[in-house]
Amino acid sequence: MAPHFLGIVVAAALLASTNAQSFQRLGACPTFGCVFPPDQTDFLAGQFFDIRLEVHAPVNGSEANGGVPDPNFTFSITKDGSTQRASTYFGVAEPTLERWNFTWYEDLFARDAGSPSVVRVTSKAYRRVALYEAGEYTATLSYNNGTKTTASWLVRDLATVRRTKNVVLFIGDGMTTNMITAARLIAHKSVNGRYQSKMQMDKFPVLGHQMTHSLDSFITDSANSATALYTGHKSTVNALGVYADSSKSPFDDPKLETIAEIFQRLTHGGVGIVSTAFIADATPAALTAHTRDRGQYGAVVDSFLNGITNYTWTNWTGPDVLFGGGAEQFFPGKTSFQGKDYYKAFAAKGYNVVQNNTALQAASSESKTLGIFSVSNMAKWLDRNVYTKNLVGNKDAPDGKNGSATDQPGLKEMTLKAIDILQTRNADNGWFLMSEAASIDKQMHTLDYDRALGELLELDDTVKASIARLDHLGILKDTLVLVTADHGHGFDVMGSVDTKYLEAQEDDRDKRGAIGVYRESGLSQYTNPNSESGPSSNASSVNNSTGLTFTDGTYFPSNWDPRYTLFSALGADPDRRENYQVHKNGPRKPASNSTPDDYVVDYRDAVTGFVVNGTLPISEAQGVHSLTDVPVFAQGPCQELFGGVYNNIDIFFGMADCLGLARDKL
Amino acid sequence: MAPHFLGIVVAAALLASTNAQSFQRLGACPTFGCVFPPDQTDFLAGQFFDIRLEVHAPVNGSEANGGVPDPNFTFSITKDGSTQRASTYFGVAEPTLERWNFTWYEDLFARDAGSPSVVRVTSKAYRRVALYEAGEYTATLSYNNGTKTTASWLVRDLATVRRTKNVVLFIGDGMTTNMITAARLIAHKSVNGRYQSKMQMDKFPVLGHQMTHSLDSFITDSANSATALYTGHKSTVNALGVYADSSKSPFDDPKLETIAEIFQRLTHGGVGIVSTAFIADATPAALTAHTRDRGQYGAVVDSFLNGITNYTWTNWTGPDVLFGGGAEQFFPGKTSFQGKDYYKAFAAKGYNVVQNNTALQAASSESKTLGIFSVSNMAKWLDRNVYTKNLVGNKDAPDGKNGSATDQPGLKEMTLKAIDILQTRNADNGWFLMSEAASIDKQMHTLDYDRALGELLELDDTVKASIARLDHLGILKDTLVLVTADHGHGFDVMGSVDTKYLEAQEDDRDKRGAIGVYRESGLSQYTNPNSESGPSSNASSVNNSTGLTFTDGTYFPSNWDPRYTLFSALGADPDRRENYQVHKNGPRKPASNSTPDDYVVDYRDAVTGFVVNGTLPISEAQGVHSLTDVPVFAQGPCQELFGGVYNNIDIFFGMADCLGLARDKL
Repeated sequence: MAPHFLGIVVAAALLASTNAQSFQRLGACPTFGCVFPPDQTDFLAGQFFDIRLEVHAPVNGSEANGGVPDPNFTFSITKDGSTQRASTYFGVAEPTLERWNFTWYEDLFARDAGSPSVVRVTSKAYRRVALYEAGEYTATLSYNNGTKTTASWLVRDLATVRRTKNVVLFIGDGMTTNMITAARLIAHKSVNGRYQSKMQMDKFPVLGHQMTHSLDSFITDSANSATALYTGHKSTVNALGVYADSSKSPFDDPKLETIAEIFQRLTHGGVGIVSTAFIADATPAALTAHTRDRGQYGAVVDSFLNGITNYTWTNWTGPDVLFGGGAEQFFPGKTSFQGKDYYKAFAAKGYNVVQNNTALQAASSESKTLGIFSVSNMAKWLDRNVYTKNLVGNKDAPDGKNGSATDQPGLKEMTLKAIDILQTRNADNGWFLMSEAASIDKQMHTLDYDRALGELLELDDTVKASIARLDHLGILKDTLVLVTADHGHGFDVMGSVDTKYLEAQEDDRDKRGAIGVYRESGLSQYTNPNSESGPSSNASSVNNSTGLTFTDGTYFPSNWDPRYTLFSALGADPDRRENYQVHKNGPRKPASNSTPDDYVVDYRDAVTGFVVNGTLPISEAQGVHSLTDVPVFAQGPCQELFGGVYNNIDIFFGMADCLGLARDKL
Repeated sequence: MAPHFLGIVVAAALLASTNAQSFQRLGACPTFGCVFPPDQTDFLAGQFFDIRLEVHAPVNGSEANGGVPDPNFTFSITKDGSTQRASTYFGVAEPTLERWNFTWYEDLFARDAGSPSVVRVTSKAYRRVALYEAGEYTATLSYNNGTKTTASWLVRDLATVRRTKNVVLFIGDGMTTNMITAARLIAHKSVNGRYQSKMQMDKFPVLGHQMTHSLDSFITDSANSATALYTGHKSTVNALGVYADSSKSPFDDPKLETIAEIFQRLTHGGVGIVSTAFIADATPAALTAHTRDRGQYGAVVDSFLNGITNYTWTNWTGPDVLFGGGAEQFFPGKTSFQGKDYYKAFAAKGYNVVQNNTALQAASSESKTLGIFSVSNMAKWLDRNVYTKNLVGNKDAPDGKNGSATDQPGLKEMTLKAIDILQTRNADNGWFLMSEAASIDKQMHTLDYDRALGELLELDDTVKASIARLDHLGILKDTLVLVTADHGHGFDVMGSVDTKYLEAQEDDRDKRGAIGVYRESGLSQYTNPNSESGPSSNASSVNNSTGLTFTDGTYFPSNWDPRYTLFSALGADPDRRENYQVHKNGPRKPASNSTPDDYVVDYRDAVTGFVVNGTLPISEAQGVHSLTDVPVFAQGPCQELFGGVYNNIDIFFGMADCLGLARDKL
């Protein structure tokens, strides 16, 4: 993917800023007194967190109450019938009072009229506190002469005994059950309705569903959902490891200690972070960063190395493994933190630095290792393996010198090396690895379903190879393996498309006649069913056009460009043209704009297809996330904790329980 | 729903007859020799089935081979190295040779050119055979001087010992995980991202995913998938309890004994069939009907009462309970079987016949009971409970006299009565109940998401009430309860819509600006979050406009018409207009046609909305099914059989295993 895509990918989450009913003054704060962590919050015993209190006084708008926020509010903690001032309870100094103003729009009409509501705020923050005793707490903010905001907090009664030595958390970003079904269809041969091979995920003994909604909106982004998965706390879109407050600074929001931080602090075990995204992207970032603005990429990379530096926090000593893209935050320049060279900064702290797959494979497993393999997001499986000419000319070499990053590892190569390093360095203390297939999401955003499904199949292949490696290392029984997602996209497959017929029709409405539904969907042409028969030879398939061969239980389509393709859709799109064929010349760009907020069909995309008008606001360049619960596949110690239906925060609590991370004292 | 919809609902499956790559000569038969059951088939030991053999000789087209089909083909069964002629193996007379011709189109170009391929056929059928010994079999068809088609058959080694007394199989027709997520959002109150109540399905201890694809296409319809769920055999779209052969008659296809037939034959237990569809519709029909044409509604109803009459088959004595709509197959006339009065026919066989909810509630639990409550599909939950004026004037009274069926039970009322009758009559032998929420599917087809989600919530409420009733009767621990679906639709929710803003915009592209994504999705307005606070009182909510009150753990939206609604989509649609508001005047009809195969926006639908062009063929009046795996929720004896990911046929084998239905001899 060309570097210029970087901004657009992020834009989907960051710039959708002024529509519909998030016209709320502040998330999780329906009254004028705000407590973060808010009502209905669960905690791991001993987990560090900050508390932010805000008292709001709207100056204008429908809630206007004089505009004078109470500076004399008080805050107390009640436990087992005993109430104490919070500063007393936590044994900290009373925080100093802060003041600021912020503005918001009550609705779209107010936005169109340019009529913001102004709110004046008084606030305090308690930094790095923790609750150690399991049970229920009541946090009470008193303000405006006796008005109260109460928050029920629960410290879960979890194990302090460790049941797993290692955890591998695979995240298929944006991956849904629907996508897994489609990936299976194109990669695994079926005879008379019976698949002749299985996805690795299909073999996991325990299946769960997790709910992905936000604290204050029912659709999440990857920052917010990663925060839930890693901290056990739901947050707000764009927030990494914090609750979002209303202050101006993106670096003073109330923080939440992450599974990586807790694990390293308590066990001194190793942490690995692997992603096919630019490594400052939300899903890897949320393991160490604490900001409500996921766009602070430079600061995110600094946090990987140095942890939190503006407040007292966990003493973070860096991950053992950090592999991904996003070289623009590493070589010195405008997009790195304070213009610094982070390759040098990591090397100065003892990291082995690698920048291509050859070096990665040759790297020792003894050292902490930084592997940055491209500018922006890494190349897609489909481009690395089938349409390889697309790797050339992207000026995305990780040294920042405008060469092409043609020697990039895939998720499998990065993950296997990460396991080797983590195990070599942490045979005693164990380790935690997060491995993200980031571009399932990124390619779903741009309606490039072939590339997205290629990334999903690469994830499944990575899971399979990782389990084999864990087994080879003799640690499979000591390792909890989870495969899940952070949110969905509204993707599904509804039939097939005769691309030859579609192309032969001249009229847009006639082209729709190429689509076959129900019985007329026929069978998948991606696995060449007509070239083989019977149950044999299913582990090997050859792509005649590229010579690609898959053996040894590696499952990818043998033909990405059959006559009969999948009739897929996302359900929330910009204007675009559809011809339902693989995009051979690189990742898809369905819509483009001549004025900033008016995206229309990109004239270069799917030229033989028909035009479909989108339903999204015309300011959206690409598809958006969806509501659906996402699957959780679990195997290993504590697998039974991950069956059934639960909230995304329960993934954190399950991992923490299995690792025995609860602490009843500091 | 008005009676005239009957044809359209079915049309989606039946009439999508000439698109794309089902241009295959005959499903599961890629060569000129066809064996049904085909290669890769599993059997329950002792399950009755028919065998159909066909030898094809194409007269013209790309496969033309002279057009003379071999009349001297032979068929043998190999088991443990020993091969016997099939007639010898099964101890039946050699079947007589049949001959016919059929035609098909090789692709859409051939169809447009009016150039069918003609195939001549020789065939034999072995009727009502069974395999009793567990293990692998090879069935071999030899034709054309030594060409062979072989089929690997496996008789699964399942329990003959019964582990559950009763089975309740709930089918949410067309229900996906995505829909469950959306239903939860609108019916269950959330505080700061924590639901204050759960769906009943969310409480089930075991979760699975089942793959729904067909034998010969990757998208299924409800007939085909019901056949898989009830017989353990994948089949073809529109086929009920048979494999689809190429002969003209829809009543001579090779049959497969269903779970209802096997259960009644072997245990003499009771069978209950409940659906909110017209009762001859595919999902209820597939329990007793055997035809490749689901449109044979009259014959389906006859099969409920009399079983199979044209061949020797299971001696079927009728269900104890048959509840649903579809009166037009019961009162005498053009749409009943041979013009007969099936109310009378059922009564003559001892059935108590009821036609409204009052009579249903008053009915004794001692008698076999037929309850038919409307013409066509039954009224939707939303119309029965909120927009009740829509029940008037539909001329759908079950007596066929053009009154309105205003006193219809819901799925819950029907299911609870069914349980009472089944338990009263079968306390010793146990019972099997299938209860279908049919209109999740039907309302998804017409893009009426509010009604579809209302039906889903009614299903969940029914499951909850049924579990309570089973517990009250003291049989909960003796009853396997499954909640699953037969296929999906590509539905998801991607955000919210400010309907007031949308309505105020004049331009179609401006209207899209009303849609809020990510943080701007905000919170669900359907549960009136602003009218309540804290975790209390979550079991009671009041709709101010209708006075509707839900208490005692019954969860439905308290407001179906909030300002901020769900931004939902199906992903495969006809042309339509979208304003994202509830359709207050009755079930939605998004598209209409002036010429038979050209559906455009219905000018009466969603008039304040904006136009979106569909992607489906313009001959489609409504949305279509999708590929996605669907969830399975299990509790009770053998629940552990239903975790993880598996094929839809495994639901049959799991139920049969739990009921101990395998037999090693007749």
